[in-house]
Amino acid sequence: MVVGQIGRDLVLRTDGLPPVGGSVDVGERWEGLGGKGANQAVGLAQLGVPVRLVGVVGEDRAGDAVLRRAGRDGIGTAGVVRRGRTALLVDLVDGPGSRRLLEDVPPEGLVSVADLERARTAFAAADTVSLQLQQPSATLLAAARLARRRGARVVADGAPDPAVRGELLGLVDVLRADAAEAELLADRPVRSVRDARALGHRLLAAGPSLVALAVPGEGDLLVWPDGDLLLPLADVPVADPTGAGDAFVAGLVAGLRRDPDVRAAGRLAAAAAGATVQRLGGRPDLSGLAPGGRSPG
Amino acid sequence: MVVGQIGRDLVLRTDGLPPVGGSVDVGERWEGLGGKGANQAVGLAQLGVPVRLVGVVGEDRAGDAVLRRAGRDGIGTAGVVRRGRTALLVDLVDGPGSRRLLEDVPPEGLVSVADLERARTAFAAADTVSLQLQQPSATLLAAARLARRRGARVVADGAPDPAVRGELLGLVDVLRADAAEAELLADRPVRSVRDARALGHRLLAAGPSLVALAVPGEGDLLVWPDGDLLLPLADVPVADPTGAGDAFVAGLVAGLRRDPDVRAAGRLAAAAAGATVQRLGGRPDLSGLAPGGRSPG
Repeated sequence: MVVGQIGRDLVLRTDGLPPVGGSVDVGERWEGLGGKGANQAVGLAQLGVPVRLVGVVGEDRAGDAVLRRAGRDGIGTAGVVRRGRTALLVDLVDGPGSRRLLEDVPPEGLVSVADLERARTAFAAADTVSLQLQQPSATLLAAARLARRRGARVVADGAPDPAVRGELLGLVDVLRADAAEAELLADRPVRSVRDARALGHRLLAAGPSLVALAVPGEGDLLVWPDGDLLLPLADVPVADPTGAGDAFVAGLVAGLRRDPDVRAAGRLAAAAAGATVQRLGGRPDLSGLAPGGRSPG
Repeated sequence: MVVGQIGRDLVLRTDGLPPVGGSVDVGERWEGLGGKGANQAVGLAQLGVPVRLVGVVGEDRAGDAVLRRAGRDGIGTAGVVRRGRTALLVDLVDGPGSRRLLEDVPPEGLVSVADLERARTAFAAADTVSLQLQQPSATLLAAARLARRRGARVVADGAPDPAVRGELLGLVDVLRADAAEAELLADRPVRSVRDARALGHRLLAAGPSLVALAVPGEGDLLVWPDGDLLLPLADVPVADPTGAGDAFVAGLVAGLRRDPDVRAAGRLAAAAAGATVQRLGGRPDLSGLAPGGRSPG
């Protein structure tokens, strides 16, 4: 089960930004289901994991369209609340690997504690509850407690708000943070594997049993009580880094459900992220990494 | 009758551009019928002019939506051809008066000579045919000839392709060009009212009986055989310059239909442009300038 953002993605590839007053041609356009929560759920479904999505979409045509798409992707959407207008996430890729996001996320698009009520069935069935820490702290705490009570593994992606950090980390089993979030968690830049390892051990002491931290220019460091593993950045052409983190978490969750070996789960996570950055937009295509799927290139 | 671009506009107002890898919140979003042809037709309808639109929209949901909207705007769309996908025009307003366009205009979205067939009824009824010179030259020549044969006034907005310039200008009654287009027509920068006046008289000698040329920082210079008139830039806060030229042409056409006095038509054109730049996006609101409408502020 994934608790997070659901929206409409608009991906535009251009050759540079237009100057003020000028225009530029769009070389490629893609529109569809997006948002960090939905992208993670799509990745999980592609990896063969049955997944339910909890989030908010608007009561508009865009909302109808993204829910239809989620259904076709095999994602359970009974826990999705309809309210207001659907978030629009414009992913402007103005050069290879260079993306800029324009986010129109209405405040009513955040998941409230009351919204979790609607997701009771999803909570009851879930062995893993994946939380995106951009959601409101009260929602995250309530969801993590519910998940714990049900005996589910709690996975969190992001940096918790400092006001609830200790309480939330105490409820989390697996924490993943990108470079900017790692810096927030460390209260200083995390520039090296050594910095990340030190932060990882501090975070393990606060609750999680597994921590994954992005290290700029290196990759992701997986840290657990008995060891750590650097997952180097995949040596692939980066078309668009959008969605790499969501795919990483999808791979980590899928891997941990397959096999208790954290190293294998980490490698699947890194492969999922590597596959996603080669594509425009945040929507992954992890079908090649699914059990029985074609092996990644 | 307007021959020109029809598309879907997406207007996004942000406070600056996001850095590479970063994001920015969208402060305001508007989505709907757009494209230069459609914006001009909307303006004409608002000014009380019965108008038919000739152009191409996609065979997609966006195409359905923009055609419904045009119908509600009182625009005749029987001459619109459905083909391919609908053009998307992203108008990114990243500061007051600062806009950047991202244009996804599929090649099949241009009006072909064959498409004009579908517009026979529109041609038969039109007293004025307004052509956007971004359309293919063969289409423009065919449309101008058809209009002439029917005795309609031919209005053209833009700079004709040099290969057909003489022939097309010979068929045009009213020509309007923005600053960049005036420079193309003059083969050198048009920086002053004096430059524009000289260019205007050269253009009058090629066919038109009225020429309107934008003069940077000054406004628009209207030139006709017996005189000229500078229409100074309206002293209004510019939210977004998009659509100013289309509104100008709509005002000019509506004015010339009301009254043969070119000065009055020019003033209506300038008022229409001034009203449009105060709004986000290219869609005008000229209802205050319609006969019997509230007078502009």
